[in-house]
Amino acid sequence: MVGQIIASALAAKGHSVMMGTRDVRMTLERDQKTAATRLTLAEWHRQNPQVRLGIFAEAAALGEVIFNATNGFGALPALESAGEANLDGKILIDISNPLDFSQGMPPTLFISNTDSLGEQIQRRFPGLKVVKTLNTVNAYLMVNPQQLAGGDHTLFVSGNDLEAKARVTQYLRDWFGWKDVIDLGDITTARGTEMLLPIWVRLWGALQTPVFNFKVVRQG
Amino acid sequence: MVGQIIASALAAKGHSVMMGTRDVRMTLERDQKTAATRLTLAEWHRQNPQVRLGIFAEAAALGEVIFNATNGFGALPALESAGEANLDGKILIDISNPLDFSQGMPPTLFISNTDSLGEQIQRRFPGLKVVKTLNTVNAYLMVNPQQLAGGDHTLFVSGNDLEAKARVTQYLRDWFGWKDVIDLGDITTARGTEMLLPIWVRLWGALQTPVFNFKVVRQG
Repeated sequence: MVGQIIASALAAKGHSVMMGTRDVRMTLERDQKTAATRLTLAEWHRQNPQVRLGIFAEAAALGEVIFNATNGFGALPALESAGEANLDGKILIDISNPLDFSQGMPPTLFISNTDSLGEQIQRRFPGLKVVKTLNTVNAYLMVNPQQLAGGDHTLFVSGNDLEAKARVTQYLRDWFGWKDVIDLGDITTARGTEMLLPIWVRLWGALQTPVFNFKVVRQG
Repeated sequence: MVGQIIASALAAKGHSVMMGTRDVRMTLERDQKTAATRLTLAEWHRQNPQVRLGIFAEAAALGEVIFNATNGFGALPALESAGEANLDGKILIDISNPLDFSQGMPPTLFISNTDSLGEQIQRRFPGLKVVKTLNTVNAYLMVNPQQLAGGDHTLFVSGNDLEAKARVTQYLRDWFGWKDVIDLGDITTARGTEMLLPIWVRLWGALQTPVFNFKVVRQG
């Protein structure tokens, strides 16, 4: 779902987009509808023909910038399948969260506190420039923050490569309209944003809507 | 430090306040200065003579409402020392966080994800009405939220007893001026606010000030 929303938004801006999957034919034959769109992937693809579909390795090879919009457990397997050679030197915008729904709702985190999924990805693929961001908001807010309070709320970036973080921050502004982006520091600070998920899911319950976000209110 | 700031603020409003400690004479003889006040406890006490000092059991016996402003590791020992009979049926406003600084900065959490310090306290003292709150902000903001953006930011409450939560929410408004207090749910939701600390400490570093807070921006 997150991948579809980001792919549509970027394609609408004229970017060339390929969505990676394990097996394109199987993906197009799935009759499961995405909750947000109420469409199967094939139906969605007919409405978004400008988004190409390919296997993970093709999408990674093509991409100048790569979004990791898998679920947490799928992140490392998808990137393994993409192949290290197709990832080296590129920016990975890592949106995934280490959510474990196996014990029901609310989910727990399968990595936290002394490590994070962002760090695990960075360690496994040292040539990739991992920038953790967008993982603290609902998918529709990711691509359209101005639908809520005119965009007066905050996003975070974490990553080891300063230039990659600066570029991603600019992309967030230019592509989606994010106005307040705080650089938390190196990729270990992804622990902080991934550990926001436990309060995020409880706020979703308390507020009865996923359309909310944190604003970091500070002086000056 | 948190206890001193809350005690002063409540005493200034005319409340009868006793600060609990393990040993009053030893506490008054400590020559360590509190970072925030730059005073020893004895010096601070001379400036705040209306705040009484007692051992934990005396403070708990006297209190209609009890604040747990210990550090995380000290929370259960202090409450054990206060004694179950002195706690039963009372409201405990639990401000403590399970921060572990033993590996240096930034701290990790010594309980998280599948449990919380709030829950541990509630399980150990089932007769106590534990309301977790104030643990997500700096001590000076706790008692004076309006110093930042006119108080336009958010506090959370977690607890099993609805009436206790409603009373604490009213106290937060009346005593300190909190305007936006979100009830996250039962005491298990304390996992959410305690797990905010990892991003809190990193924001402190990124913003170079502890005077900031989260506002939950939502529609309507």
